Amino acid sequence: MSGARGADHERRTRDLGFATLDLDRERRQGLPEIVYGPGKTPSQVTAIVSALLAHNTGPVLVTRIEAADAATVLARVPDGTHDAEARLLVWRPAPPREFSVVIVTAGTADGPVAAEAAGVATAVGLGVTRVSDVGVAGLHRLLDRVDTLRAADCVIVVAGMEAALASAVGGLVAAPVVAVPTSTGYGAAFEGVTALLGMLSSCAAGLTVVNIDSGFAAALAAHRMAR
Amino acid sequence: MSGARGADHERRTRDLGFATLDLDRERRQGLPEIVYGPGKTPSQVTAIVSALLAHNTGPVLVTRIEAADAATVLARVPDGTHDAEARLLVWRPAPPREFSVVIVTAGTADGPVAAEAAGVATAVGLGVTRVSDVGVAGLHRLLDRVDTLRAADCVIVVAGMEAALASAVGGLVAAPVVAVPTSTGYGAAFEGVTALLGMLSSCAAGLTVVNIDSGFAAALAAHRMAR
Amino acid sequence: MSGARGADHERRTRDLGFATLDLDRERRQGLPEIVYGPGKTPSQVTAIVSALLAHNTGPVLVTRIEAADAATVLARVPDGTHDAEARLLVWRPAPPREFSVVIVTAGTADGPVAAEAAGVATAVGLGVTRVSDVGVAGLHRLLDRVDTLRAADCVIVVAGMEAALASAVGGLVAAPVVAVPTSTGYGAAFEGVTALLGMLSSCAAGLTVVNIDSGFAAALAAHRMAR
Amino acid sequence: MSGARGADHERRTRDLGFATLDLDRERRQGLPEIVYGPGKTPSQVTAIVSALLAHNTGPVLVTRIEAADAATVLARVPDGTHDAEARLLVWRPAPPREFSVVIVTAGTADGPVAAEAAGVATAVGLGVTRVSDVGVAGLHRLLDRVDTLRAADCVIVVAGMEAALASAVGGLVAAPVVAVPTSTGYGAAFEGVTALLGMLSSCAAGLTVVNIDSGFAAALAAHRMAR
Amino acid sequence: MSGARGADHERRTRDLGFATLDLDRERRQGLPEIVYGPGKTPSQVTAIVSALLAHNTGPVLVTRIEAADAATVLARVPDGTHDAEARLLVWRPAPPREFSVVIVTAGTADGPVAAEAAGVATAVGLGVTRVSDVGVAGLHRLLDRVDTLRAADCVIVVAGMEAALASAVGGLVAAPVVAVPTSTGYGAAFEGVTALLGMLSSCAAGLTVVNIDSGFAAALAAHRMAR
Amino acid sequence: MSGARGADHERRTRDLGFATLDLDRERRQGLPEIVYGPGKTPSQVTAIVSALLAHNTGPVLVTRIEAADAATVLARVPDGTHDAEARLLVWRPAPPREFSVVIVTAGTADGPVAAEAAGVATAVGLGVTRVSDVGVAGLHRLLDRVDTLRAADCVIVVAGMEAALASAVGGLVAAPVVAVPTSTGYGAAFEGVTALLGMLSSCAAGLTVVNIDSGFAAALAAHRMAR
Amino acid sequence: MSGARGADHERRTRDLGFATLDLDRERRQGLPEIVYGPGKTPSQVTAIVSALLAHNTGPVLVTRIEAADAATVLARVPDGTHDAEARLLVWRPAPPREFSVVIVTAGTADGPVAAEAAGVATAVGLGVTRVSDVGVAGLHRLLDRVDTLRAADCVIVVAGMEAALASAVGGLVAAPVVAVPTSTGYGAAFEGVTALLGMLSSCAAGLTVVNIDSGFAAALAAHRMAR
Amino acid sequence: MSGARGADHERRTRDLGFATLDLDRERRQGLPEIVYGPGKTPSQVTAIVSALLAHNTGPVLVTRIEAADAATVLARVPDGTHDAEARLLVWRPAPPREFSVVIVTAGTADGPVAAEAAGVATAVGLGVTRVSDVGVAGLHRLLDRVDTLRAADCVIVVAGMEAALASAVGGLVAAPVVAVPTSTGYGAAFEGVTALLGMLSSCAAGLTVVNIDSGFAAALAAHRMAR
Repeated sequence: MSGARGADHERRTRDLGFATLDLDRERRQGLPEIVYGPGKTPSQVTAIVSALLAHNTGPVLVTRIEAADAATVLARVPDGTHDAEARLLVWRPAPPREFSVVIVTAGTADGPVAAEAAGVATAVGLGVTRVSDVGVAGLHRLLDRVDTLRAADCVIVVAGMEAALASAVGGLVAAPVVAVPTSTGYGAAFEGVTALLGMLSSCAAGLTVVNIDSGFAAALAAHRMAR
Repeated sequence: MSGARGADHERRTRDLGFATLDLDRERRQGLPEIVYGPGKTPSQVTAIVSALLAHNTGPVLVTRIEAADAATVLARVPDGTHDAEARLLVWRPAPPREFSVVIVTAGTADGPVAAEAAGVATAVGLGVTRVSDVGVAGLHRLLDRVDTLRAADCVIVVAGMEAALASAVGGLVAAPVVAVPTSTGYGAAFEGVTALLGMLSSCAAGLTVVNIDSGFAAALAAHRMAR
Repeated sequence: MSGARGADHERRTRDLGFATLDLDRERRQGLPEIVYGPGKTPSQVTAIVSALLAHNTGPVLVTRIEAADAATVLARVPDGTHDAEARLLVWRPAPPREFSVVIVTAGTADGPVAAEAAGVATAVGLGVTRVSDVGVAGLHRLLDRVDTLRAADCVIVVAGMEAALASAVGGLVAAPVVAVPTSTGYGAAFEGVTALLGMLSSCAAGLTVVNIDSGFAAALAAHRMAR
Repeated sequence: MSGARGADHERRTRDLGFATLDLDRERRQGLPEIVYGPGKTPSQVTAIVSALLAHNTGPVLVTRIEAADAATVLARVPDGTHDAEARLLVWRPAPPREFSVVIVTAGTADGPVAAEAAGVATAVGLGVTRVSDVGVAGLHRLLDRVDTLRAADCVIVVAGMEAALASAVGGLVAAPVVAVPTSTGYGAAFEGVTALLGMLSSCAAGLTVVNIDSGFAAALAAHRMAR
Repeated sequence: MSGARGADHERRTRDLGFATLDLDRERRQGLPEIVYGPGKTPSQVTAIVSALLAHNTGPVLVTRIEAADAATVLARVPDGTHDAEARLLVWRPAPPREFSVVIVTAGTADGPVAAEAAGVATAVGLGVTRVSDVGVAGLHRLLDRVDTLRAADCVIVVAGMEAALASAVGGLVAAPVVAVPTSTGYGAAFEGVTALLGMLSSCAAGLTVVNIDSGFAAALAAHRMAR
Repeated sequence: MSGARGADHERRTRDLGFATLDLDRERRQGLPEIVYGPGKTPSQVTAIVSALLAHNTGPVLVTRIEAADAATVLARVPDGTHDAEARLLVWRPAPPREFSVVIVTAGTADGPVAAEAAGVATAVGLGVTRVSDVGVAGLHRLLDRVDTLRAADCVIVVAGMEAALASAVGGLVAAPVVAVPTSTGYGAAFEGVTALLGMLSSCAAGLTVVNIDSGFAAALAAHRMAR
Repeated sequence: MSGARGADHERRTRDLGFATLDLDRERRQGLPEIVYGPGKTPSQVTAIVSALLAHNTGPVLVTRIEAADAATVLARVPDGTHDAEARLLVWRPAPPREFSVVIVTAGTADGPVAAEAAGVATAVGLGVTRVSDVGVAGLHRLLDRVDTLRAADCVIVVAGMEAALASAVGGLVAAPVVAVPTSTGYGAAFEGVTALLGMLSSCAAGLTVVNIDSGFAAALAAHRMAR
Repeated sequence: MSGARGADHERRTRDLGFATLDLDRERRQGLPEIVYGPGKTPSQVTAIVSALLAHNTGPVLVTRIEAADAATVLARVPDGTHDAEARLLVWRPAPPREFSVVIVTAGTADGPVAAEAAGVATAVGLGVTRVSDVGVAGLHRLLDRVDTLRAADCVIVVAGMEAALASAVGGLVAAPVVAVPTSTGYGAAFEGVTALLGMLSSCAAGLTVVNIDSGFAAALAAHRMAR
């Protein structure tokens, strides 16, 4: 905490003026810094991605990037892939390892958030299985898939509206359940707030919750478990 | 709309100074006015109950009355009964008729609200069956009771926390479902607001919702259906 | 709850990858699954509608669909009708039966929500009468229509702003009243929240409430009552 | 705006250390400062009341004072009167003048707020008529009193829950209507917030609104009109 | 309350299908119904305005109408005038009478709301004086205008952000003060909610408040006082 | 989903009238149902605990129980222990296993929530280390403990006020971080809501969050990870 | 950031088990850690205060401590003083220096918060002048004190309700203004939230704001300026 | 407070009809009035800027102006400069003086708000240093810059999401810290509200806070300190 900016600082960070890259994060957490797209110009994203590719060794990701910006960046930094539904750019994905994540949605409209979770989880090396549209209004759809759910090392539940699916899944499996509220719905759904509060208040014990629409955070939470 | 207070006014209302009784309600809606206890002194409640008993012919109820006040009123107005858990006073209950209400709770702590719903429903002549503590964290508890639920003319679901039970029940039965959010829970349950919003945003189609902790409103909604 | 996905699963569901159709719903609730438009591509809607038409026998509806998407779907799936004001697609409407719903609005701006309620109610076989623009600022407009209201098996009240109309209607009729708050108004109307809270807090006993702007939910609630 | 504290300051204010009395208010607004009770000790209230009686000539009021504190102050400052329901102390009430205020409540539980409005209005010289418990769930109770309402120079509507009464009255009379939301109700009534928002969003044109439970503010608003 | 729709109904209302005009309002309140523009098509507005002009005798107004819609309606209904800043259409304005309203704004950005208040007040026959941009950050601007303020029969204060101006004016004048919160500001101003709450909580006694941005409601409140 | 209540039902549930015990949960999730104390009488708690001890084999816990009630229950059901700070009752704790949880608090006032997390985690067999009062206002306190944090299989961060500690810890360790917002603080801390929202919005990737003050949920989340 | 707990750690912190004292803070910020009372037992407070007195050299303060607890602590740690209105304990106050703080309140009920600000500011060595009860409803009270306000190095404005005083003061002085919202008021004052939002939205440029009722934070902000 | 508009009024204000300029502000506070762009037409801005340049002597600024409007105004009023990222127009900047402000951001997306703070601070004569993207998820980035932070006379912390950076900085430096919450983030970040509440609830003593995204207010707060 001396505050001196010396060689150690140079090794651990990269000052781009508009950004101070945390190059040390890969050592501390097993993954390079992941780039949050909104509020950054394509030039800024390009510079950051290039530096991370140069100075780190693991996967490099950009989340929530608009399609046009993604195309601009991809044209400048080769070998990346773009997942439009997930709004995700990936370079140098991690090799797969033995940790299975099942990503469950309550409805079709929750798809893009599940796609982000799946895209990020895959890019950081986790195994992904998806189960779609099994909300509790037709419980047999969920019950028919219990074997799949119980085979997971971690279940990510993606649901909007009242998000009852999270509690139902939480009661059926023993594995960690990460609940992702989505902004699906209208009126009293309050753009995901109702789902968020419902998941936090779940009667199923030991659920954990991430930010609204953050498939990204859920995938990273699974990555932490997979160490 | 002439505004004149004449004989017709006398027939349809009763002015007690602090209250203007709607004696006509029994004709319009099949039930005398029901007395909301809070904010009224035992003397006021006594006067109102006495007038309703004198000028109407159906059941007379006082809701949400504290135990001490209930005892005071009962001592002054004979032949009433007190349900302490439901905080309910009843005189002259209606004769039973053919309309069955099943009242389901998610947890034991939802009991007092279910008791109010049951007490009011019984007092106005409906048939009541209770199913307790079948929240979705253990779905088989609910699924084992599907036959009971499907036999109802109306199902009242009483649940706090995230209130996922309402959606699950809504998907299992074809009858009207009235959802009552309760203030059970803490933190993000926000004294019933989360349950309320969840029920309003339910993925199960055609649920309707009443005020937080209002077993009373749910019972009256069932009564309207039973006409 | 065995979790096996066998013949029974095939009979009761239809996996489209992005959706798991609940084909069993018609048996359980008397109506096929109703399709919620937002968040689905026209191709997805087309696939879902086609499957429901093929595997169920009752009416098939798509709600809240944009006009352009509606045209695309209609061109691909014959014999449907589009109600632009209600944003509703309907195929194979149910035959009319003896259950009358009166749909009342407080103001002209509540029209589209009332149109959704009317369109859905008609499609599922209920009889519909509409009464428009009878808000409490001119009570005689409402009082002049009391006979119509009292003839209903169920009254749906559609109102925004402070939604006082719901309480007034609730006091005039004995039938079930389903209140639909609308996002009409500005400032303190908070896009329907004020109407929603007012309806939930109504001094008229036994009202029930659905989500903001959900004419759909109100119509389905009436359908449950009409069994 | 020189900032000098000279003779003029002495004439217009009174420094008590814990308070700086605005003696000039009576000249500007026709009434001495009115004392808000909460957060003041009986000794502080006594000192303020004594100074106002000594240096002003009009009525002196203390609002929202607890019964025990009121007794203490009354014992020290003679010739005051205490209205326990209104939590009000009054000395030297103004002579009555020609300005009639009708104070209407939706329910019996709104009584204390109406009592504060009535007590303050009377103390500042206005004529007061009260109409109690005429909520819209039984509209004839209100319609029977239209003549009384239309005879008022100003109508104060005191209502909690959804406060629909304010809109109904607003549509019936041409005089100014001051709406007072009350904290009557529970759950979605949110301690008066729902009533407040409903009154602000009223479909009846030209209503004005004061703070929750503030019978005081409504009476003062009427006083401003009565100049 | 018989509910029959007879000759009396015909005299007092006008059924346009999408609207039920309250023709009786002019008799009850001295002004024809005022048309709220949003949610109505130009054809609907045209029909309503034409009917009000035909069946009532006083001023006819349409509020919050978009410029293009206003032009369409004006082309169909002659002799109206359009105030673009106020988003107001007026036909047949009332003759001026002796009641002076001073409309004060805190900042230049509050101008459109003040313009609506001024346009409506003038159209219903009140005298209007405007004082602009005298927020409390430079108190001398306000103090220099005290004589103007004190000459008013009613002061309308239009202010956003923290809306401190309302309290300052409320303490300076004895006349009725109607406070209009505006959505001016950003962040913690919450689109007028902060101004609204501040005005409701004002330390200046007897202020009344209307809905956010509702210059219309303030003008109508003044009209009620001017009877 | 047949709904029949047969032998299977008897094996998996226990009907106590006021409660339907989920005896099957131990098989599904490795732990018996955990009893939530509020809203249950000591007699109800006694009956539930006795049944769980009789029909399950793992640890039996009661959370959030008041001291007096705890004493009553302990007197009736032998061999339990009471942790007053954690408000926790435990019978038959699980044997320790190899999974280390580090529970970190930001301040001394967060102690009781950390105590609940520690008590539950220990009772279900996890290893617990506590680090207290290392909030970010003195970062060296936290940095000095990095080795301890990095040795954990799971870190539980317990923090109120702005809860910045969660983000700081999240950036320092690679293991799963479960964040528990507490109601510590006042004013803008809003009884834990600010901490909750801050944790959900954390700039540290992959944090998960549980309900306000729920040390219980955090411990169960860790238990799920420890399978 | 090595994480080792060595001699340096011992010098900079003090582990009390329930607390990790930041002994280094005095070096970094010129003041020892200040003890927040709520959630700590008198024994914990005693241990912390004793350690701070032993290992630091500057003033030691405990804020928001209940009177009984304060007495207990004072009896154990000699030479402290207790300010009951401010709920403050002080040992070893700092010598006065040249930096004048003027603390202004809008009303008498804001007194305790001002007392906390004054007590803390004095204890850390600042000069304090108080001006009480000069809210904007009587502007001359404030204008008469402008010379006092303009002589300050820093002005602390303490106000509840709508908190208009902060804007008025902000426009009159050039010095830093720290605004403290208080929970004075009721209803729409929302326990200080309205004052908080109003101060944050002030039209007076360059005001800064601290937490509701936090006289403490305002005094410490002034201390930072006085370096 | 006489209210007369005489020569003194002319000297201190400038009435433009739509605006009342506070020409006296420069004398009172050392800076001319600063123009808030939203809600003003380019012509209005031009007139105001011209008058301030003519009648005051210090820097003239327009904040939050759209690029097109800025170009229009610049073309009419010579010698100004436009900072597009900061949305700022400046004429006649103040000469630099000895007061150093360090502006720190948590992430790249906070850049525009920091740019506004920097632009305004520079224009009013303060020295500015910027430190970018040092959020607490990588603490070493911040710790490496401690010397820079400690050399400041005032630190402005600009952060969105959970805004933990403000607390971390607050604990590291002794100088005044002005925290600016930004609307960076999504979901539970609630457009800056979470950052705002977190900063107000900070565990670091003596932080002060300004409105969401208001780099302007933070710069002006620093200007007050620099007198």
